[in-house]
Amino acid sequence: MTKKILLLGAGRSAAVLINYLLEQAAKEGWEITIGDTSVHHLQTVLAEKPFASAIVFDVQQANQLATEVAKADVVISLLPALFHELVAQVCLQQRKHLLTASYVSPAMQRLHEEALQKGVLILMESGLDPGIDHMSAMAALEKIRQQGGRLLSFKSFTGGLVAPESDTNPWHYMFTWNPRNVVLAGQGTARYIQDGNYKYIPYHQLFLRTEKVKVAGYGTFESYANRDSLSYRKHYNLQDIPTMLRGTLRKEGYSAAWHAFVQLGLTDDTYVLDNAEKLTKRSFLESFLPPPAGEETSLEQRLCAYLAIPEQGEVIQKLAWLGLLSDEPIDMPHATPAQVLEKILKEKWSLSPGDKDMIVMQHQFVYELAEKQYQLISSLVVLGENEVQTAMAKTVGLPVGILAKLLLQGKILYRGVVIPIHKELYEPVLEELQQYGIDFVEQEQAL
Amino acid sequence: MTKKILLLGAGRSAAVLINYLLEQAAKEGWEITIGDTSVHHLQTVLAEKPFASAIVFDVQQANQLATEVAKADVVISLLPALFHELVAQVCLQQRKHLLTASYVSPAMQRLHEEALQKGVLILMESGLDPGIDHMSAMAALEKIRQQGGRLLSFKSFTGGLVAPESDTNPWHYMFTWNPRNVVLAGQGTARYIQDGNYKYIPYHQLFLRTEKVKVAGYGTFESYANRDSLSYRKHYNLQDIPTMLRGTLRKEGYSAAWHAFVQLGLTDDTYVLDNAEKLTKRSFLESFLPPPAGEETSLEQRLCAYLAIPEQGEVIQKLAWLGLLSDEPIDMPHATPAQVLEKILKEKWSLSPGDKDMIVMQHQFVYELAEKQYQLISSLVVLGENEVQTAMAKTVGLPVGILAKLLLQGKILYRGVVIPIHKELYEPVLEELQQYGIDFVEQEQAL
Repeated sequence: MTKKILLLGAGRSAAVLINYLLEQAAKEGWEITIGDTSVHHLQTVLAEKPFASAIVFDVQQANQLATEVAKADVVISLLPALFHELVAQVCLQQRKHLLTASYVSPAMQRLHEEALQKGVLILMESGLDPGIDHMSAMAALEKIRQQGGRLLSFKSFTGGLVAPESDTNPWHYMFTWNPRNVVLAGQGTARYIQDGNYKYIPYHQLFLRTEKVKVAGYGTFESYANRDSLSYRKHYNLQDIPTMLRGTLRKEGYSAAWHAFVQLGLTDDTYVLDNAEKLTKRSFLESFLPPPAGEETSLEQRLCAYLAIPEQGEVIQKLAWLGLLSDEPIDMPHATPAQVLEKILKEKWSLSPGDKDMIVMQHQFVYELAEKQYQLISSLVVLGENEVQTAMAKTVGLPVGILAKLLLQGKILYRGVVIPIHKELYEPVLEELQQYGIDFVEQEQAL
Repeated sequence: MTKKILLLGAGRSAAVLINYLLEQAAKEGWEITIGDTSVHHLQTVLAEKPFASAIVFDVQQANQLATEVAKADVVISLLPALFHELVAQVCLQQRKHLLTASYVSPAMQRLHEEALQKGVLILMESGLDPGIDHMSAMAALEKIRQQGGRLLSFKSFTGGLVAPESDTNPWHYMFTWNPRNVVLAGQGTARYIQDGNYKYIPYHQLFLRTEKVKVAGYGTFESYANRDSLSYRKHYNLQDIPTMLRGTLRKEGYSAAWHAFVQLGLTDDTYVLDNAEKLTKRSFLESFLPPPAGEETSLEQRLCAYLAIPEQGEVIQKLAWLGLLSDEPIDMPHATPAQVLEKILKEKWSLSPGDKDMIVMQHQFVYELAEKQYQLISSLVVLGENEVQTAMAKTVGLPVGILAKLLLQGKILYRGVVIPIHKELYEPVLEELQQYGIDFVEQEQAL
């Protein structure tokens, strides 16, 4: 019997997933409906694909949501995370399975019992991070445990970056994901555990407390700690591990410059600027500096003194490259500092046609086996094809697509709210991902 | 006819107000009812005062609130600010006037029209800060304006401090007000205007960006900017003033040491520590430090390196004096960093019997008159009698008491939600305050 997939959300990150679903559909006998607020861009992709159609879809139209879910066997949601609960409620009513690449929110977790009772699978955290990170970590942990190893330390790092050949700016960074999330990244307090001691890093110190991460063939990166490194101990069955840290990767030098934004207050999204409509990039910066004290000093001098950075150094060069020292108007009538900063960054950090992105992930395990300590480093680098078939779209979309296939093939028996930390889920996914060049390289050594 | 006053809240800050009301009651023919959750401490004060009584009172008991308000002509609330709306609603229903020393919240401001219609006065911001600050500033501004002066700059500073004779600790600070508010002070972004430029100070920079304030006879203080210096422009009719700043006063050196707390993250009240029950003061501090890197270094060395402070300097001495480097257990099972810090500070910063506090306020005006610039500095210092009759209780309680008297004497004709920025209010209050030693000293000079 024909299986029907409803994919909600066909934005940038869906491009590779859509290709995968179309490619599998013929073999697997699927019908695919893709819903988004705008579907013009899908015309070419869907041409001559009688088994696939696109519909203009608004998740907030309750009737349409119910009608489309009713027709489907599996619903995949790449909508913004705030809509997942709404979709999940309808899926539960109609006993349809749901897949997402988003974190399990407390609201979603509360649906677990009902989903179990109704025999529904709500499979989340199935993209890259969260997603491939869980799957690859669990695979490596399983191997260590089977040997009888005892975990002493687990650090895991992921970054959505720009491929070396497209890396033409002094920040070595471009937006390959929601720019707003990049601007607000790290707000709150990061928590982790090191040698049995809980550690807390306030936001204003986060980008100073980086650690270096080397990836063979791709040089040195730096990592800042994610907000929550601790809740994963339970998922990974590592409750007693003395050291556990999750972090975000950037190229070296990024964090010191981003720290300047944090120190100034440019990433604050909690209040609206008083005079946004009159600001230039330069006067925006001036708003966050102490007034000149006494003798005439330039904004550049005061900025460097305030941030305690050298006047000819890399940080000020990065700020200058973004145009922050220029008199260009910002032209936003009503904006928070974070919104102004996002606008300035978008002008410089957007992918151009042909630009390639890069995903880097690295797990660092230390374990004890027969009274010796070993280090296992497992690294992944994925390069994008171009500005549409990005490494981000591949690594988010493919695991979701593969899991949808396994589910429709009857190979996933879990029900309830689940994340892919089970062997029956991650093993076939990691295996198939290798065919798409998503393949971890392992290095192991005695310490 | 006998006038009846209902005073809600008889905590520490009410001591002087209660004395004032009792003192006036005989002359004015008042009956006074004082309600609080605990009133044992009032027995001595109210003994042989037939016109005054104390009742056990819970503002959340709707019947009791309605009954007691019904008997009163004027209600004074020194309850925590979150209860004012509840009290105000009952006062409006029963057309009774209400006085408080708290800021006008948006919820309270929304009652303005209804209060006007019902002929009810809700007189707020009538204590020290807000209160005496408004009154004394308006009096000085009025004088400058009457001469024809044009305001160029207005800076205003207030601090609740410890009197020189009781100042025995290296912070030169003790709690004379709600300790929790002191720990959380400054969170958010401070905004002010300087030479026509809006300025924003993020919390993590606030205690670095102090300015010195000299008060004749009392030495040099330092000030950090208050969250909101801008909304007062409207109240004070200074919409176009190029420079306006409000700040909080501390003795020199306090802010640099408090900045260490902020840098570490000890004032964060947004999350609960993972292992609070096991923490000592020293391990609490350790939780906020980067782990030792390589060679053996003491916590003290790492702390000083992280904060970029000298190892024998004043900041580390202040932290050590608080016991933060000791192995004493904290003994709080479930606490935020801010709650732990508050507990540690309370052990050291509480007033002992006989300790005297001190209120310092200074307004700095710059104005132009006949093409010349002048500076007017208006300063107030009030000393406490002891740990009960504090300067804080005097300066918060007396203006409230005087305004209650004026209201009952029929001398206040304003209705609606009002703050004491009107001459008819501040003139008689400032005059009577002089009798209690609350008297500003003015210094004026051409610039």
